[in-house]
Amino acid sequence: VIIQETGQTLPPPSEHERETLGQDLLRRGYRLACETVPAHDATVLVPEESRVRPQIILTSGTDYLYPARLQPEIENCPVQVPPATLQHLKADRERLLTALFETYGLKRLSVDPVILRKLPKILRSGHRGFTCTLWRRKEIIALQEGIHEDLFGMAFDMGTTTVVAYLMDLRSGQELSVRSAMNPQIPFGDDVISRISYAQNHPGGLERLRAPMLQCLNTLIAEAAAEVRIDPSRIMETALVGNTAMHHFLMGLETRYLALAPYAPALTDAQTLKARDLGLDMGPGAYAHMLPLKAGFVGSDAIACILATGIHRKKRPTLLIDLGTNGEIVLGNRDRLVCCSTAAGPAFEGGHIKWGMRAAPGAIERVRIRKETLEVSVETIHDEPPVGICGSGLISAVAEMIRAGVLLSRGNFSGDMESPRILQGEDGPAFVLVWAADSGVEQDIVITQRDVAALQMAKSAVHAGARLLWEALDNERVSRILLAGAGGNYVDPRDARTIDLFPPCGEKDIRGIGNAAGYGACLALLDGRKRREAERIAERTEYRELSGSRRFQDLFVEGMFFAQARDYQEDF
Amino acid sequence: VIIQETGQTLPPPSEHERETLGQDLLRRGYRLACETVPAHDATVLVPEESRVRPQIILTSGTDYLYPARLQPEIENCPVQVPPATLQHLKADRERLLTALFETYGLKRLSVDPVILRKLPKILRSGHRGFTCTLWRRKEIIALQEGIHEDLFGMAFDMGTTTVVAYLMDLRSGQELSVRSAMNPQIPFGDDVISRISYAQNHPGGLERLRAPMLQCLNTLIAEAAAEVRIDPSRIMETALVGNTAMHHFLMGLETRYLALAPYAPALTDAQTLKARDLGLDMGPGAYAHMLPLKAGFVGSDAIACILATGIHRKKRPTLLIDLGTNGEIVLGNRDRLVCCSTAAGPAFEGGHIKWGMRAAPGAIERVRIRKETLEVSVETIHDEPPVGICGSGLISAVAEMIRAGVLLSRGNFSGDMESPRILQGEDGPAFVLVWAADSGVEQDIVITQRDVAALQMAKSAVHAGARLLWEALDNERVSRILLAGAGGNYVDPRDARTIDLFPPCGEKDIRGIGNAAGYGACLALLDGRKRREAERIAERTEYRELSGSRRFQDLFVEGMFFAQARDYQEDF
Repeated sequence: VIIQETGQTLPPPSEHERETLGQDLLRRGYRLACETVPAHDATVLVPEESRVRPQIILTSGTDYLYPARLQPEIENCPVQVPPATLQHLKADRERLLTALFETYGLKRLSVDPVILRKLPKILRSGHRGFTCTLWRRKEIIALQEGIHEDLFGMAFDMGTTTVVAYLMDLRSGQELSVRSAMNPQIPFGDDVISRISYAQNHPGGLERLRAPMLQCLNTLIAEAAAEVRIDPSRIMETALVGNTAMHHFLMGLETRYLALAPYAPALTDAQTLKARDLGLDMGPGAYAHMLPLKAGFVGSDAIACILATGIHRKKRPTLLIDLGTNGEIVLGNRDRLVCCSTAAGPAFEGGHIKWGMRAAPGAIERVRIRKETLEVSVETIHDEPPVGICGSGLISAVAEMIRAGVLLSRGNFSGDMESPRILQGEDGPAFVLVWAADSGVEQDIVITQRDVAALQMAKSAVHAGARLLWEALDNERVSRILLAGAGGNYVDPRDARTIDLFPPCGEKDIRGIGNAAGYGACLALLDGRKRREAERIAERTEYRELSGSRRFQDLFVEGMFFAQARDYQEDF
Repeated sequence: VIIQETGQTLPPPSEHERETLGQDLLRRGYRLACETVPAHDATVLVPEESRVRPQIILTSGTDYLYPARLQPEIENCPVQVPPATLQHLKADRERLLTALFETYGLKRLSVDPVILRKLPKILRSGHRGFTCTLWRRKEIIALQEGIHEDLFGMAFDMGTTTVVAYLMDLRSGQELSVRSAMNPQIPFGDDVISRISYAQNHPGGLERLRAPMLQCLNTLIAEAAAEVRIDPSRIMETALVGNTAMHHFLMGLETRYLALAPYAPALTDAQTLKARDLGLDMGPGAYAHMLPLKAGFVGSDAIACILATGIHRKKRPTLLIDLGTNGEIVLGNRDRLVCCSTAAGPAFEGGHIKWGMRAAPGAIERVRIRKETLEVSVETIHDEPPVGICGSGLISAVAEMIRAGVLLSRGNFSGDMESPRILQGEDGPAFVLVWAADSGVEQDIVITQRDVAALQMAKSAVHAGARLLWEALDNERVSRILLAGAGGNYVDPRDARTIDLFPPCGEKDIRGIGNAAGYGACLALLDGRKRREAERIAERTEYRELSGSRRFQDLFVEGMFFAQARDYQEDF
């Protein structure tokens, strides 16, 4: 420890102290806390190198996510700055830097200009102790009067449909608040292609998409800070992941070329910049780290998923599928990683389905059909009366219809069955999940032939993409399949198998892992080394472009079938 | 040279080429221009390392200023960037960086975010050749379609009274345009102390002083660019010097503590930042370099004067005096440099003098008095009818009055002389320089006893400061005295001696050197090494605080006298 102020002179260093610390440290005021007994009140500084860093604290909620270690890019350094005198005249900035050099041996620090502007007043506030927040031990990004230990950061996952924000305590690694919001760009289009097209075809379109996204992030920051009762200006770092279009919109980068072959992004490398330059309302000197992208449709969210699951460190290959409007798929292990993106369409999120809806209260999320009687029981979100079907509900319903023999392998309704639940409408047959009397909307909630076809398109895109990657790895046996994305957590692995969501590749285990991308962003926020790891992942991962691939076309057509349906058919 | 495109295959490398260039360069497309004769049209790139850098071009107009060498911090790098393809998919930024690596071996370049925003469009403009402007071979600060060689920069000297701007060609070192303007802060006070006090006592005062200064710089940029017919956005670097208060105002730093003991600046080290962050309207990626300061009243203008005159490299000591409202004084040689600042008051700029005025047409700048008859002849700026007296005119008039025996050593009028030119007014005697009939204002233009006293105060401050520094150097013989500042060029060395502007310190030579600070800023703009040199000068130079110095008080009282007057008196 360093004894900085005391009313009394201290006893001279003991022999043990002289041995342990040496002349140099003793001269700089270091003492052993176990040997030095001050007789009066004293101000004691525990130097950085004597502090214990806590380890592995973030609870991931699942064994399939990588544990976090704490080594953030920012840290607090308390420091005593003497006032300027006529005899030892030194400018404010130079006095502060000298004090940091003398206390921590830190050299060549820069000072953020926004801190410089406040420096003269803070240094004359009457305090002698100040807290500098340092970024990478290179730059002073905050300066406060007095000694403070708080260190806050935020992680963001910007999805096409949902934006999630995590306020983290960077000293303990604890998640202090998690907030989410609908992506405010939805009015400009459900999928990124329509938003890119909006941005391209309207004057100032890019800014019209950027501004609401930024507003959304700032609202989440304000909400999270309010929940924890801190001022947003005390949040000193942020790590952001998102798909490439969201990343480009937020950075104000041209997006139109993402929608045109060869779909080249403006940039892919990780970017570290001032949060204020993105427009984020947090600490005025705070930094923002945008994790690296891979391609036009494989964004930093996919890289963050790999980081979070650690599949790039495992011996046996894992298949990682992000179920969303754009389904990113990654396959590989510590030796090799391949990825692709498939335009699954909105079916997995309940879009373009007759009774489809987002995962909200009243949405059917699970369906059971008794094979003998075709009796149906459904589970809804929050147990409310059913009002529609969300993505996992659609998968569950179709899987049950296959197992009950209602649907055949081509996705068509069996002509052999008769049941009041099988209706013949103008647009083809439909299956009644919930009778009007039991529903919350006073109409029959049905699955139509068209809905089944939409799911077939979506699952076939994922199936074909996964198959193509599997072939690239010479059909090596896959040990595990992980389903990420907001819906991923709720898809029943058995249902996923029944609808042939992916090729049978020897997997022993299928798991939903929730928002792995957001978790990956938290890892990068808590531990700077994870950022370098993300960069290496982005470099290593091989990208397969599916558009224009003949093999993908063939696999896509093949994947439309419900191959498993035959088994159930024979039973029947 | 690198042959980049040709309709025809080239002859194989000659033996001489193989020897000179080696396998590695040949593989990268290098050829000897003297050996390779293309049979058809070809695009040939002259690589950076083959280009000749011109030397010593800036004409200083005087032998006492240091010659400039060209080694700016920015350079143009022409580069070919291939389009993205599905087969070799790479993001725009990464394709550009790869091309720069392959052409110049440049690694780890960053790209200014404002350039990133334009990157996708520029790379798809149909050109294959582009020009990157690099800053310190570290960052891409501009990107243009096609091959361009233009490289422009601006230097600024921000004085309390005058702001001067220089538009420079960074390829040739030539001065393309010099513009000046009155400091628009003058309405807030003639001297920096009154401006600091305004900033302190009015809400938003700092910004009310910063905004007009910034506006002034931007007007000068626009005027200079218009004169040379370029767009201001093509100016890619700027170096700025000024006194500490001007520096702080422009950077938005708190100035109030500059006016309170111990007069500590917010910072003194050189600052390099984006020109846009200062608010300057030039290239959107351009950098601004603020040269280092020494103390609250010794600014980067004083450091730039030392840099420009090279007194820090000479064997024999030089005394450097900047004649202004705040007179900075530097004394020293290659071994030691000491400096101080004296509050001379506005007399040297014609302020607070009965007929005082700034150096404008009609201002008396030189006076001759025939000792026998007290006949007076005057020279005015632009030879216009006299309307007032500027700083050098005041010095000249007082010096002549001493030599003619009109003024005695204490600065009082001789009681022995009778002449119609010596009037007795209510406020004491006055001397008529120009009769009403000959003046441009139809009144007698006179020097009053009060005017003489004001000059005595001003010159005594400089005299005492210089003497104190001289004593710090053990009264070592000074080889040369340089008078800088807008007025410095026009002060007659003999007049300066007669009024005892500085102690007699053995100097052989006294010279006016004009705006040496502006010249120093140009040096720093043209040659990055001069910036490091300025930093070393600022570090090396010892600052003497005069306020509170007992010795300075004594010297100040002593220096009020016109010591030389006695010689003329005895003659009489």
